[in-house]
Amino acid sequence: MKVSILGAGGLTGKEILRILSRHPHFECVHITSDKYVNKSLIEIFPDLPQKYKNLIFQKHSSPIPTDSLVVLAVPDEVSLMMTPLLLEKGHSIIDISGVYRIHSKENFEKFYKLKHESFSLMDKVVYGLPELNRKNIKNAQFVSNPGCYATSVILPIFFLGELREKISGDIVISSASGVSGAGGRKEEVAYSFLSVYENFKPYRIFNHQHIPEMQEYSAFKMKTNLPEIIFTPHLLPIHSGILTDIVIRFSKELDVSMIESQFNLFRKEPFIRFLPSPEDINLQNIQKTNFLDISFKVDGNKLIIVSALDNLIKGAAGQAIQNMNLMMGIEETVGLL
Amino acid sequence: MKVSILGAGGLTGKEILRILSRHPHFECVHITSDKYVNKSLIEIFPDLPQKYKNLIFQKHSSPIPTDSLVVLAVPDEVSLMMTPLLLEKGHSIIDISGVYRIHSKENFEKFYKLKHESFSLMDKVVYGLPELNRKNIKNAQFVSNPGCYATSVILPIFFLGELREKISGDIVISSASGVSGAGGRKEEVAYSFLSVYENFKPYRIFNHQHIPEMQEYSAFKMKTNLPEIIFTPHLLPIHSGILTDIVIRFSKELDVSMIESQFNLFRKEPFIRFLPSPEDINLQNIQKTNFLDISFKVDGNKLIIVSALDNLIKGAAGQAIQNMNLMMGIEETVGLL
Amino acid sequence: MKVSILGAGGLTGKEILRILSRHPHFECVHITSDKYVNKSLIEIFPDLPQKYKNLIFQKHSSPIPTDSLVVLAVPDEVSLMMTPLLLEKGHSIIDISGVYRIHSKENFEKFYKLKHESFSLMDKVVYGLPELNRKNIKNAQFVSNPGCYATSVILPIFFLGELREKISGDIVISSASGVSGAGGRKEEVAYSFLSVYENFKPYRIFNHQHIPEMQEYSAFKMKTNLPEIIFTPHLLPIHSGILTDIVIRFSKELDVSMIESQFNLFRKEPFIRFLPSPEDINLQNIQKTNFLDISFKVDGNKLIIVSALDNLIKGAAGQAIQNMNLMMGIEETVGLL
Amino acid sequence: MKVSILGAGGLTGKEILRILSRHPHFECVHITSDKYVNKSLIEIFPDLPQKYKNLIFQKHSSPIPTDSLVVLAVPDEVSLMMTPLLLEKGHSIIDISGVYRIHSKENFEKFYKLKHESFSLMDKVVYGLPELNRKNIKNAQFVSNPGCYATSVILPIFFLGELREKISGDIVISSASGVSGAGGRKEEVAYSFLSVYENFKPYRIFNHQHIPEMQEYSAFKMKTNLPEIIFTPHLLPIHSGILTDIVIRFSKELDVSMIESQFNLFRKEPFIRFLPSPEDINLQNIQKTNFLDISFKVDGNKLIIVSALDNLIKGAAGQAIQNMNLMMGIEETVGLL
Repeated sequence: MKVSILGAGGLTGKEILRILSRHPHFECVHITSDKYVNKSLIEIFPDLPQKYKNLIFQKHSSPIPTDSLVVLAVPDEVSLMMTPLLLEKGHSIIDISGVYRIHSKENFEKFYKLKHESFSLMDKVVYGLPELNRKNIKNAQFVSNPGCYATSVILPIFFLGELREKISGDIVISSASGVSGAGGRKEEVAYSFLSVYENFKPYRIFNHQHIPEMQEYSAFKMKTNLPEIIFTPHLLPIHSGILTDIVIRFSKELDVSMIESQFNLFRKEPFIRFLPSPEDINLQNIQKTNFLDISFKVDGNKLIIVSALDNLIKGAAGQAIQNMNLMMGIEETVGLL
Repeated sequence: MKVSILGAGGLTGKEILRILSRHPHFECVHITSDKYVNKSLIEIFPDLPQKYKNLIFQKHSSPIPTDSLVVLAVPDEVSLMMTPLLLEKGHSIIDISGVYRIHSKENFEKFYKLKHESFSLMDKVVYGLPELNRKNIKNAQFVSNPGCYATSVILPIFFLGELREKISGDIVISSASGVSGAGGRKEEVAYSFLSVYENFKPYRIFNHQHIPEMQEYSAFKMKTNLPEIIFTPHLLPIHSGILTDIVIRFSKELDVSMIESQFNLFRKEPFIRFLPSPEDINLQNIQKTNFLDISFKVDGNKLIIVSALDNLIKGAAGQAIQNMNLMMGIEETVGLL
Repeated sequence: MKVSILGAGGLTGKEILRILSRHPHFECVHITSDKYVNKSLIEIFPDLPQKYKNLIFQKHSSPIPTDSLVVLAVPDEVSLMMTPLLLEKGHSIIDISGVYRIHSKENFEKFYKLKHESFSLMDKVVYGLPELNRKNIKNAQFVSNPGCYATSVILPIFFLGELREKISGDIVISSASGVSGAGGRKEEVAYSFLSVYENFKPYRIFNHQHIPEMQEYSAFKMKTNLPEIIFTPHLLPIHSGILTDIVIRFSKELDVSMIESQFNLFRKEPFIRFLPSPEDINLQNIQKTNFLDISFKVDGNKLIIVSALDNLIKGAAGQAIQNMNLMMGIEETVGLL
Repeated sequence: MKVSILGAGGLTGKEILRILSRHPHFECVHITSDKYVNKSLIEIFPDLPQKYKNLIFQKHSSPIPTDSLVVLAVPDEVSLMMTPLLLEKGHSIIDISGVYRIHSKENFEKFYKLKHESFSLMDKVVYGLPELNRKNIKNAQFVSNPGCYATSVILPIFFLGELREKISGDIVISSASGVSGAGGRKEEVAYSFLSVYENFKPYRIFNHQHIPEMQEYSAFKMKTNLPEIIFTPHLLPIHSGILTDIVIRFSKELDVSMIESQFNLFRKEPFIRFLPSPEDINLQNIQKTNFLDISFKVDGNKLIIVSALDNLIKGAAGQAIQNMNLMMGIEETVGLL
C-alpha cells in the first residue's frame, strides 16, 4: 500500500516516517514540505532509519501518486484547502490537523480562529480514536486523527462508561506537555532554550482548541449530558510526553471495584495499559511508544484519573498508523509494538 | 540580634544563610548539621557569600547561644523533640518543619504519620504567614513557618475575601514543584538524574501533608465553611519553583472587577505581585526572590487563579526571614528586596 | 539463533532487548539480573517493545540454555568469574564488560583496579570493533565489545591510516557523555538530579579505564608508535550521547584532501557517516542509532576531528548486535538500520 | 558615583543591575536599550531587586548624564561607534564588548569580521583583568572588560608564571559554556529548546573571537613566546557557567609543588579559589558568584588545569563591577562577595 505524507518535514511527519520504515505493509512514496523542497530525507533527519533516506521533499502542491493513502501532517490552513481536493480525487485520507474533528462550526471558529470553508465534510469524516470508534474507522475513506491532549482526556473518561452519568460538578483537568507538542521547531523566543528551561507555564487557559473535542467525544454514547470540562494545559521543559490529571466528584461514594469493572471492559485494548497506582504513571514508560497508560485513585466520592502518552506517537503519528492499519484491513498493532 | 540555625546543612538552611549574609540586623552565630559536624560552612557551600564562611557546623545537641533567635530547618522528628526544650529556655523560635502548623491532632497524625507528643504547644504557636497574620507574628515568641505548596494556595484563596462564601463545589488545585522542594539531596533512585530528567510525575495524591494546612488557613476569617480542596502535587524536572493552578466554580457569574476589588485590598503587600494575565506568570520571575506572583482569569462563573513562588525562598527561607523581621520589630522587607 | 543476556536489567541490557525485539534471526530465551529475579521484563521496562514482555529475570547463576549465544552485560567482576566457565561449556560469547579488551595485564590492573585471574583468555578473544577487525570477528567464538568512549576515539584515529605516522606531539582528546554512560541508575548523590542538572564536570582525569584501550587500538596496523593520547572525560546533563574532540598537530602542513582520501577508504562502512563540517555534528542525529558520525577541520598543520555516537547503541548494545550478526554469518546491518 | 548602562536590556546588563542594586557606592541613573525604549526595568526584569525598578529604558542615542561612569554592554558595532564619542566627552568607560581587547588590528578584523575604525584607541585602553593588571586599572579612564572564555583561560596560564617558559608543544583547550554565554535571547532555531536540550555541540572551531585575546594575555610578562593555544568552545544545555580544561605538556617532568609554588603567589586574590583536585571543580559552586575556581593535576610532564566561572558574572558583569571598584578607588570586593 502506497503512502504519501504531506508535511513530512515536521516532527509528526518525521515520526510517521520512523514507524513506516519498519512497517511491512506500507510503502512511503511521496513526501512534501514547502520548507525543504528538493532536499533528501536523510539531509533533514539523519537519525531516521535508512529505508527512505533518498526520498526527496516535494512541494505540497506537486502531484500526489494517484493510488496512495494520504497523510496530512500540515497546518490547519493547508488541510482546510487541500483535503476537499484530495477526497475528490478518491484518496483515502488521514488528517492530523485539527480541522475535521468537531461537529460544532461555531466552536470550531471560536477555538481555532479560522473560517471553516468546507464544513460539509464533517458528514463524511470519521473520528480516528480506535478504542472508541474502531468499526467506523475500518470502513472509512476519511479519518480525522485526534488531538494529543484530547486523546489523553477522552479515553479515560469514555472508559468510565455509565459511571459518567453520576458525575457531580465539573471535570477539572490539568495537563502538561513536552515542547514537541507545543510549538516544536518554531523560531520564537517563547520556545528558546532560555525561556523554557527551568520553567513551567500554563497557556491557552479556558480556550485551548482541544476543549470542544474533549467535550464532544468524552460524552460518546452517553444518555445524558457530560458536565463541563475545565482544561488547563502547561508547557513542560522536556522534549515529549503528556501527563494528564482528571479530577472528578461523584454524586455518591465510589468503591474501587466500580471503576475497575468499567475499565476491565477495555483491558484487551492493545495500546491501553491500566497501572495499579497513578503514582506508577511515568512518562519514561510511554515515550517513543504508542501506549496510553492510565491509572486512578478513589477517596470517598472523589476520583482522580492520571493518564500519559507520547504526544508525537499515541498523540499523533502512532495513532495515525493505528488508524491506517484499521482502514486497510491490517492487524491494528503492526509496526507499533 | 543573634541567630542560630539548626539544620543549616540542608537547602533551606543554605538559603537562610545566603540571605542573612546580606542582612544588616541579624548575625548568625551558630549552625548545626549532624551530617557535617566540624566542617566549615565554606567547605559545604562554596557558592555562599563569604561573610559566614568560617562558621563551623555543630551537632544539633550542642549548646545553643542563650540569647539567640533559633531557626529550626530540621526534619519533623527533630523539631518535635527540640522545640519544647528551646521554648522552655526562652528562645524565640521560627520552626520551618511542619509539626506546629495544623490545629487538628487527628489530621496531623494522619497526614504526617507521626505521633505528636507536644501538641499542647499548638496553643502558643503563631502561623507565620505575614500577609494573613502579621499582627500576631509581631508579638510572637514561637512562629511556625508555612509549607511551600501551602503558601502558594492559601494566600490566593484568602485574598478572595468574602467571595469565598460564594464558591460552589470543590476547589481543585494542581501544583508542580522543582526537585529542591521535593527531596533535594536525597540519595534515592527516585531523585536520580535519569529518573527525573525528561519526566513529570504526580505524587502523594489525596494525601499530601500540606492539605490540612491549606484547608485550615484558606478559610481564615470566613464565616461559613470553605468547600473541600482537592490538591495534586507533581515533581518537575527543574531545580526550584512552584506553579499552582486553583480552579473554582462560583454559584453565580463573576465579573473581573469583583475579583480585582478583593485583590486590591492586598496590592500594597510588599511581596505579592498581581499580574495582568495568568499566562504572564513565569517561574523565572520569582526564582531566587521572596515574591508570590498571582494572576487570574474568569470565564462565566469559573475562575482560575495561578500563583508562583520559589519553594526555597517565599516557600521557606525568605518567609522565615520575613517573619524574623516582624518578630524583631525590623522593617519587614529588610534583606529580601 | 538463541540468545541469553546476562545482566539484562541494566541500561545496556535493555537496549539489546529493544533491538532483538525487532531482529528477525535472534531469539532471546534467557535473561538474568540478580536485582530483578523473578520479575517479568515488562514490569521492569514497560517501554520496551512487547515481544519479550513475559521473559522472567533469572539469577546470573541459573542454568543457561546450552546452545545459546551469551551476551554479558554484567559488571567487570562478574564477567571475570563467569566468562571462563561459559567458554568451557562451548558458548559463543559477546562480553560487554571491560575485562578482555587490553593486552597489557599491568595496564589492566592499574586502570581497572582489579586482579585479572583469567588473563590467558586474552589469547583467544577478538576485539569487537567491526570497522577495524571485521574478518576476525566473523570467525570468533569470543568477542570483547569495545568501550563507548574508546569507540568514539579509536575509529577516527584508525581511519587516518598512514597519516598517523606524521603526528607530532600528543593527541589531546576531550569527551563528554550523557549520564546513561556514566553511572546510570546508581543510587549516589553524584548522579542525583540536583547534582547533575545545570552542571558539567570532568572526571577520572589521566586515569579513565578506556585510555589503554584507546592507545592500543588507535595504533592498529601502524608501523611506528602512536604518540600519547591524553584523554579527559566529562559528565553531561543529558540522558545519552558522547561527543569527542580529537586535537592533533602534524609534523607538516595538511591539506583537506589528504584526510579525505584516507577517510574515503571507509566511506562504505554502513555505520560510519562522514559529515562536511564538525559543526554539523549533532548528538540528536546519533541518539538511538548505531551510527558513528565523524567530521574534521584543518588549519595549517593542526587537525581537529569531532565524533559522536550513542553510548548505549554504537557504544554498547548496537555494536554488540553488529558483532553478533558478523559472528553468525548474518548481514551486519540487520536489526540496526 | 553615578553609572549609566548602555545595553541594559541584555543578560549582562541585567546582572550589572542586580549587583548595583546592592552596591553602596554606585548609583545607576541611566539605562538604555533600543528594544525596550520607554519600558520600565521592572516590566522587563521582574526578578531583579526592586531598587531600580522604576528606571526607564532610553534609546542608546539619548543624552547620557554628564558625570556618569558609562558601562557599555552593547554589540560590538555599537561600541565601535559610541566609545570614541563618550571618551571625548570625558566619561570613564567600561566596555564589555570585544572591540578594544586585542592589539593586533589584523587579528581583530580576521576574528571579529569587522572593520576597526577607531583602532588608535588601543593606545589608551587598559585590559580589565584585575588579577593581571590591577595597577593600570586603578588609574584608567577607559577599561576593556575581558571575554568570558578568555578569563577562564588567561588567568590559569598567567598564574603559571615562569613555568610558561617550559611548555613544549601546543596548549590544547576545551571549554563549554551555558546558553546565556552563547546567544542568550536570540530568536534562532539554534538556540531553541528542542535544538539545545539533550545535545552538546562544538562551534567556531579554530576561529572563536577570544583566541587572539587568550594568546596575547596568557603570555603577559613572558620573556619568550607562548606556544600556540588551540581552543574549542562547546554549547552546553544549561543556563550559565563555563568549564575550561587546559592541557599542557612540559619539556621536563613536573612535580606538584612546582605548580603550587607558582599558584601560591595568587592565593590572596579575593576572587580566585584554588581547589585540591580538578574533580572538585563544580559549576554549581561558581554560578551567580564572581569566583574563578581553579585546580590542576600532574602526570609525569603532563599538566591539566581545570577552571570554572560564571560567564555572566566573573565572565562579564561581576568583572565589570570589580573594575569599576578599582577605577573609583573603592575596595575591590564591594558588592561582589
